[in-house]
Amino acid sequence: MLTDQQILRIPGPSPIPPSVSLAMAQPMIGHRGQSTSDMLSVIRPKLKRVFGTEQEVLILTASGTAGLEAAVVNAVAPHDEVLVIVSGAFGERFADICKTYNIQTHLIETEWGKAATVSDITEAFEAHPNIRAVFMTYCETSTGVLNPVKELAAEIRSRSEALIIVDGVSCIGGVETRMDEWGLDIVVSGSQKAFMLPAGLAFIAVSDRAWNKIERNPQPRFYLDLKKHQDNLIKDTTPFTPALSLLFGLQKALELMEEEGLVNVYARHDRLMKMTRSAFKALGVPLLTEDKDASPTVTAVKPADFDAEVLRKVLKGEFAMEVAGGQKILANKIFRIGHMGYCSPADMLQAIAAIEIAIAKAGGEIQLGSGVRAAQQEYLKGANG
Amino acid sequence: MLTDQQILRIPGPSPIPPSVSLAMAQPMIGHRGQSTSDMLSVIRPKLKRVFGTEQEVLILTASGTAGLEAAVVNAVAPHDEVLVIVSGAFGERFADICKTYNIQTHLIETEWGKAATVSDITEAFEAHPNIRAVFMTYCETSTGVLNPVKELAAEIRSRSEALIIVDGVSCIGGVETRMDEWGLDIVVSGSQKAFMLPAGLAFIAVSDRAWNKIERNPQPRFYLDLKKHQDNLIKDTTPFTPALSLLFGLQKALELMEEEGLVNVYARHDRLMKMTRSAFKALGVPLLTEDKDASPTVTAVKPADFDAEVLRKVLKGEFAMEVAGGQKILANKIFRIGHMGYCSPADMLQAIAAIEIAIAKAGGEIQLGSGVRAAQQEYLKGANG
Repeated sequence: MLTDQQILRIPGPSPIPPSVSLAMAQPMIGHRGQSTSDMLSVIRPKLKRVFGTEQEVLILTASGTAGLEAAVVNAVAPHDEVLVIVSGAFGERFADICKTYNIQTHLIETEWGKAATVSDITEAFEAHPNIRAVFMTYCETSTGVLNPVKELAAEIRSRSEALIIVDGVSCIGGVETRMDEWGLDIVVSGSQKAFMLPAGLAFIAVSDRAWNKIERNPQPRFYLDLKKHQDNLIKDTTPFTPALSLLFGLQKALELMEEEGLVNVYARHDRLMKMTRSAFKALGVPLLTEDKDASPTVTAVKPADFDAEVLRKVLKGEFAMEVAGGQKILANKIFRIGHMGYCSPADMLQAIAAIEIAIAKAGGEIQLGSGVRAAQQEYLKGANG
Repeated sequence: MLTDQQILRIPGPSPIPPSVSLAMAQPMIGHRGQSTSDMLSVIRPKLKRVFGTEQEVLILTASGTAGLEAAVVNAVAPHDEVLVIVSGAFGERFADICKTYNIQTHLIETEWGKAATVSDITEAFEAHPNIRAVFMTYCETSTGVLNPVKELAAEIRSRSEALIIVDGVSCIGGVETRMDEWGLDIVVSGSQKAFMLPAGLAFIAVSDRAWNKIERNPQPRFYLDLKKHQDNLIKDTTPFTPALSLLFGLQKALELMEEEGLVNVYARHDRLMKMTRSAFKALGVPLLTEDKDASPTVTAVKPADFDAEVLRKVLKGEFAMEVAGGQKILANKIFRIGHMGYCSPADMLQAIAAIEIAIAKAGGEIQLGSGVRAAQQEYLKGANG
């Protein structure tokens, strides 16, 4: 087997483009010097465009989960009533964080693999009119569901001034996000998915409505105090020593995204999703989600006649290719393919072709090549590039 | 001027060794895969040796400040009485964190540039016998003071079961630390100083006595919940997606430290300190700290007859060399030279020679070359290497 090749097709961490790796290897600089300020001043407007906001996108040196916790400790007061949409493991995480802070937490629980609906929201607000904040997961990594954030937000806003708090860790940068236009109040993402970077940065943007709440909120916080980050970022600096090598990489990754054009980045992710889904449909291997609920960044497959874990072992052993397994109640029942960030149509053709072999070796009855052919046909429907 | 050279002699972030930069540019891997577990299993015993402990050294994806906050929210209950030694800006930060969480906080405030003493501790415990935790800064980066942690800890332990919590961000890895032998309860460090890495990882080790307190502490915490980190790390994994590129670098940096030998690493830092201090003494330029209080990782200089900020501008403009200025009450009054991590005797000879020129240009009356000569003589006193 060819050594020193690894093909990472899990839903994050995602592969790093070579030019981003090189950027991260730049010599270290002082975090209080002009070079750091210059870098932040370049990064700030680019991040705003990705989030679809005029607000600052704050940059925390932390995993995405710390961004989710920052949303909770800044924007929710100790005795507030909140609503959490749980459509998988990361929705559960939002609920766990709220419960840790003894917040009165109502849940909308969807079947894993299905998105939340507008009528779920309607019912929840009718039952609990005093909800002060709604937490939702944009892409639920554990199932490959993309919740209809725009529509859910519109329904919430038509009924309430509740803050709308969105975990966009596993899709922002790969899926269009219009924070301001959609009326979202806090939007969180992380570096290791569609942003094509290693983990270690959390991004978080805050609406005026949310700032108003945050400034009056007595919940103690220090490292995750968003006001500290805001006050520093507008002066092109950070309250604490930032992960500078990741910022070098972020600047480069954002440049790559703008070179491609954000519209094209989003179209590429949409195409990768369609290629992947059409392949499994042609192979007759069931997808976990329906088309209308599917995320452009990750696809979950739920095999009927072979073992997902055997497939994963074959892929790893024969092609050094990694796809993810299922989490929690979906453990051993699904496999998940990441197609986010540094991932091209050619990469997906490769992944599908190898997965076909692995399905065959795992005992699944498929016609070899038929998945690839469907993906090729899907590819040819789109514009070039 | 030669382009693309930067000589970073600030007290962190410190320069990155080329082999560490290359290690960090390795292709991304899955954070739940065997490669990550293997890496953590290699890192764990090496970190323990640096901290001088049999306990796990937990690895948080965060700046050092989050490590300090983790110590507070895990080990201090809401109504505890604590003592914070403030000998500079980072002691103040510990106090700020405690105050944020409404903890009853007593202070030992030393003159900036002086270390705390055993009798400071004696007096504080006589005045406040119910102190449940004592926070101290091992190396106070803002002044270049090394507090006598071992002696202070012995005095505390002779009087009390109070937890001893140490901020070792700017010296651990460059200065011997014997957590277990000295009876320290929580020891925090960060990646961007003597560990020769970019910022983005906080390290934190916890004694059995502290775990006992932590397990009974109702203070809410999620991302900084040390028990979550411990329960995962002992299984060679992490509760949240870690900054994998920094872990690649950490493994390599720890290998470099062991190749050199930890005893030799500490001797090198001691020698760098002595070379630097002997140079300024020979030049007749005052040092902020006395020899007995001086840190092996950073030296603060307090010029009498020239402007520290002019010196910094000359160094930056003519040699692309950065030293740090003063913070808070020492702003514009001192400059600080970092000699931690990836820094050799040859690097210090270079820094001292360039600083001599900058002193002359800033109007200081010195004999050119006399600082370098003193540093050379100091070098020759030591063993080779």
